[in-house]
Amino acid sequence: MMQQLFTDHLWKKVEPIWKSYLEHPFVKGLGEGWLDKEKFKHWMKQDYVYLIEYSRLFALGSAKAHDLSTMTTFANLLHGTLHMEMDLHRNYANKFGITADELEETEAAATTTAYTSYMLNVAQQGGIENTVAAVLACAWSYNYIGKALAAWPNALEHEFYGNWVQMYSSEDFTALANDCIDLINTIAEDKPEHELAILEDIVVKTSYFEYMFWDMAEHQAMWPVPVAAQNL
Amino acid sequence: MMQQLFTDHLWKKVEPIWKSYLEHPFVKGLGEGWLDKEKFKHWMKQDYVYLIEYSRLFALGSAKAHDLSTMTTFANLLHGTLHMEMDLHRNYANKFGITADELEETEAAATTTAYTSYMLNVAQQGGIENTVAAVLACAWSYNYIGKALAAWPNALEHEFYGNWVQMYSSEDFTALANDCIDLINTIAEDKPEHELAILEDIVVKTSYFEYMFWDMAEHQAMWPVPVAAQNL
Amino acid sequence: MMQQLFTDHLWKKVEPIWKSYLEHPFVKGLGEGWLDKEKFKHWMKQDYVYLIEYSRLFALGSAKAHDLSTMTTFANLLHGTLHMEMDLHRNYANKFGITADELEETEAAATTTAYTSYMLNVAQQGGIENTVAAVLACAWSYNYIGKALAAWPNALEHEFYGNWVQMYSSEDFTALANDCIDLINTIAEDKPEHELAILEDIVVKTSYFEYMFWDMAEHQAMWPVPVAAQNL
Amino acid sequence: MMQQLFTDHLWKKVEPIWKSYLEHPFVKGLGEGWLDKEKFKHWMKQDYVYLIEYSRLFALGSAKAHDLSTMTTFANLLHGTLHMEMDLHRNYANKFGITADELEETEAAATTTAYTSYMLNVAQQGGIENTVAAVLACAWSYNYIGKALAAWPNALEHEFYGNWVQMYSSEDFTALANDCIDLINTIAEDKPEHELAILEDIVVKTSYFEYMFWDMAEHQAMWPVPVAAQNL
Repeated sequence: MMQQLFTDHLWKKVEPIWKSYLEHPFVKGLGEGWLDKEKFKHWMKQDYVYLIEYSRLFALGSAKAHDLSTMTTFANLLHGTLHMEMDLHRNYANKFGITADELEETEAAATTTAYTSYMLNVAQQGGIENTVAAVLACAWSYNYIGKALAAWPNALEHEFYGNWVQMYSSEDFTALANDCIDLINTIAEDKPEHELAILEDIVVKTSYFEYMFWDMAEHQAMWPVPVAAQNL
Repeated sequence: MMQQLFTDHLWKKVEPIWKSYLEHPFVKGLGEGWLDKEKFKHWMKQDYVYLIEYSRLFALGSAKAHDLSTMTTFANLLHGTLHMEMDLHRNYANKFGITADELEETEAAATTTAYTSYMLNVAQQGGIENTVAAVLACAWSYNYIGKALAAWPNALEHEFYGNWVQMYSSEDFTALANDCIDLINTIAEDKPEHELAILEDIVVKTSYFEYMFWDMAEHQAMWPVPVAAQNL
Repeated sequence: MMQQLFTDHLWKKVEPIWKSYLEHPFVKGLGEGWLDKEKFKHWMKQDYVYLIEYSRLFALGSAKAHDLSTMTTFANLLHGTLHMEMDLHRNYANKFGITADELEETEAAATTTAYTSYMLNVAQQGGIENTVAAVLACAWSYNYIGKALAAWPNALEHEFYGNWVQMYSSEDFTALANDCIDLINTIAEDKPEHELAILEDIVVKTSYFEYMFWDMAEHQAMWPVPVAAQNL
Repeated sequence: MMQQLFTDHLWKKVEPIWKSYLEHPFVKGLGEGWLDKEKFKHWMKQDYVYLIEYSRLFALGSAKAHDLSTMTTFANLLHGTLHMEMDLHRNYANKFGITADELEETEAAATTTAYTSYMLNVAQQGGIENTVAAVLACAWSYNYIGKALAAWPNALEHEFYGNWVQMYSSEDFTALANDCIDLINTIAEDKPEHELAILEDIVVKTSYFEYMFWDMAEHQAMWPVPVAAQNL
């Protein structure tokens, strides 16, 4: 009898959450092409800040890996993100009139801070398996959304959002998502149930935070505190 | 010429934020006695989970301190929180019909997760000064609120909420807040401006999260994701 | 069929190493009463520095534990070490004419630095199981030595070293060692072989470092670098 | 008045230590060409293991850096070490009949474990400045030795050790050492004396460990424990 992959088990848990992304006005608007550009620009700036913190996870993966091969995989993901993905982001942002300086100066919103802090905390607190679990939902769910939207009429050809759909449904990004999937299946092998439950919880919580991130973009939200309380 | 304490400088930054707590319906309702008990029970359960994570900060402070005296201060805060404060919480919760088991089984809400993850991430990522900065706002602002409410008519004598006001305005809790204030003033001494700015940012962000925590309690919020997306 | 405890398996690995401690001139001299007092004083000062770093492990255990009960166990070990064990050390050192100030000002020798750095690195790098594995050899092997020496003629009654043998063979210290043994058996349960091999390696390496620590004391060693290279 | 660079201050502390390396039989034998090949092979295998752990420091630097530019510098050092330097090592080792598999399977000696554990512990325990201080002595002192030996007669042309002298005196390696020097001068700027003392201590201790590493290679040492105590 073939052993079930851990990601097959995870899929059952995250499917209802990830399906809700496709129903979310931000993602729907992006796929159908009617998304407000100001909302997209908010997403872009927050995602740029997010990627910086997400890169730290790859660095932690390299610092915590048990073997040279996993160390190298994470070092490549770190190098690739800082040198290629963020460059793509800068070019794409430029198309929307956002300068590189503006990206750099973006202050993280509450949800961006919450989501990246959550991942970095569990990664630092635990062994390498926590890092592997923490990076999964972002890579895999973006690929899931990219592929879903790619099947929608005209989504790939949209003047502004076509690039987005192309990028996250691309072979390159699919390979990156698959790397993350392989990493967790390898590390989950033979682990006792109560330890797998911890990894599952990380994948579910990051999936919740993904939803909240779409919601933050939709509402162009920063920090939900009274204006008078903000450092202006 | 006397040197200004770092907490004098911080006070100017956090005062508008902390004043907004006193205007918040949850805190106002608590101080004036008309707060919905269900909201308070939500706060209690979330605060119990919060205290567990907050204790980890004290542990990190002990692990990262440069000298035996600071290690011991943090070890005492850790021991005191796990043995006394959480016991007080369990007794107080009992008065509201919440059992110890119910407290233990509480799942952290999004805001609780965000706030504690933020503190634990900055604490692990940086040196001891980050831990010292991360614990400050909670201890100091609860003491600030406790003392403010203690001056409101009948707040100290309220059947249900009087204990709360007594606890956080007490000499014991004031001493704990003062310990935290002393720790940051000592560690901030002679640090260059750009490093103090990082500590200030931690104190401001944790103050924002404090506001969001009151708001989470007021709305009895858990995770702002669609019901269909939740693991039921 | 009863499952073998992980510490039964570990015992087979560490027994030859720990037996070599009893043959080591420092331990032999201590148990037979003819140990040079200057060597013992070197051990005492280095062990005092060691205990400070060892305490950080308990703090990390509290910061990384998955449940409140393990957090509390480690918080108690931390509190107990900083408040009781180190106080015992200070009193005992006093008997040998070493002041508390002298203890505080002790610079860690190369072996002390190596051993504590090893434990703190694996503890920080991994999950809670690494911390649990890192603290084991010291507690358990001191209890093993204490009990072995207690059976030697007059060892318990020796004017200077009797206290040492009493302390590490005592019921209190046996209970502490048993706490550490229980912690690792609980956490090792159901773990796959390749993960247990990592924990075993930590216990073996710390057992090697224990030997080197006895050797460092015997030779009153500090840093094996040329005198001209030392910061005098 | 020009401000003194922190590395000018450090130089005064490390110069006597680093000078002792040039007097050490291993380094002397390497520069004069009469070093026993078996000793060099021991160094190679231990240095390979060392580089894996040293790479983790670069990863931690990327995880802990305050700004994107420092994150990228460390990510480049990590990527370069894993992809180029270790490849150079594998090729060079091959010249001595050491296969890639043999390198991979090398078990870290006590001194290698001690040195890398020391660096990784201080890096994880503190903020980014500790990582910056921990990586300095290795990069800078190898460049110092490389340049010193390059001026010795025939050292650069030696059949077996010429490559070594070329590598560590090369422009590329000098640039890497200078990157590390720049990093610490930038991060040390305006820091108070008592914090600089901590960084200085890290640089001095790693310089001691460098000496011990040469000594370990000279004696082809593994673990200084009785044979009977070793897991054979």
